[in-house]
Amino acid sequence: MFTLHISPGACSRASHIALAESGLPYTLKRVKFAEAEQRSESFLKINPKGRVPALETGHGVLTETVAILAYIAQVASVDGVTLAPADPFEFARMQAFNAYIASTVHVAHAHGRRAARWADQSSSHADMTAKVPGNMRDCFRLIENDFLVGPYVMGEQYTVADAYLFVMGGWLESDGVDIAEFARVAAHHARVSERPAVMRALEEEAAL
Amino acid sequence: MFTLHISPGACSRASHIALAESGLPYTLKRVKFAEAEQRSESFLKINPKGRVPALETGHGVLTETVAILAYIAQVASVDGVTLAPADPFEFARMQAFNAYIASTVHVAHAHGRRAARWADQSSSHADMTAKVPGNMRDCFRLIENDFLVGPYVMGEQYTVADAYLFVMGGWLESDGVDIAEFARVAAHHARVSERPAVMRALEEEAAL
Repeated sequence: MFTLHISPGACSRASHIALAESGLPYTLKRVKFAEAEQRSESFLKINPKGRVPALETGHGVLTETVAILAYIAQVASVDGVTLAPADPFEFARMQAFNAYIASTVHVAHAHGRRAARWADQSSSHADMTAKVPGNMRDCFRLIENDFLVGPYVMGEQYTVADAYLFVMGGWLESDGVDIAEFARVAAHHARVSERPAVMRALEEEAAL
Repeated sequence: MFTLHISPGACSRASHIALAESGLPYTLKRVKFAEAEQRSESFLKINPKGRVPALETGHGVLTETVAILAYIAQVASVDGVTLAPADPFEFARMQAFNAYIASTVHVAHAHGRRAARWADQSSSHADMTAKVPGNMRDCFRLIENDFLVGPYVMGEQYTVADAYLFVMGGWLESDGVDIAEFARVAAHHARVSERPAVMRALEEEAAL
């Protein structure tokens, strides 16, 4: 049994979707950001970084979406559920896609609402926020033209990378970017949104 | 045969060290940042992101340090060279460490010299640069107290995560942070610096 610590709307949604796809049993715990619960003593014992997602497993706590997604895919594969390529190079390509999301796309987005992580002055925050739409467009142009094989990220096979891209695509509107600027990403987003596991995860998030 | 595209001093050093540790044959290609070669048409065909590292393999090009390190470890394991934990959960924990380096530590560092990625005004760049030492300290405090098991990142076993931490530790001085503030990280850095593969990689980098 896994316990996933999440915050509605955060990137933890990707790990949540992966769990819903996996068929593995899981429970959810909401970390209340509005109450700064991620900085509470009890949560810092689970994840000293004070972030979501954090996945409690029988072996210990796992953090970082890139690692959690691959681990869920690996555990699910034991039960015959395929959420990642079996071929080692294709698996590495999927990890490269997910690592790009984590270290470039999510970071580009975070400069809107989390600018205080990297600068103190409100003029800097405004400057950083103003640059978010352009940076997100640059990222999604690469995804549209170079990375999204189609119909899924890795091609014919749905993988955990699709859950991660789905979550990022869902952030575009709040970043001032119309997902329709990227026709293939938009089609992918619509396709993934109709998956029963995705709908289940979104319903569970809303009910927390 | 692998071809690794690198820039001396960049994070590509971690992948380079992993190749040197692996015993696998490789060649190096220097991407001349001073000549903006990473934005050249020929390099963008290899990596549309215009970044290093990029690893040319017999199957295609792989990018992102987190993915490249795990892939090198995986290929090396076929020849009996151990550069990652065999246990799936421990492997995932190593991936979580590497993902933290890529998406938080490297990003914190990049706000010094790459601030223009996220803001346009020089006042913002100065503000971001001023925050780098504090952010790097926060990252390394977590690594020192919570993540570095010792003597290596994952414990008794040297893994590709050690190469990645070694590279980040080498950046601290330029970020205005004395590595000696973190006794266990400093001891790790000294320990890793003495490995023949690390010395070989540094010599190869200097000779490029």
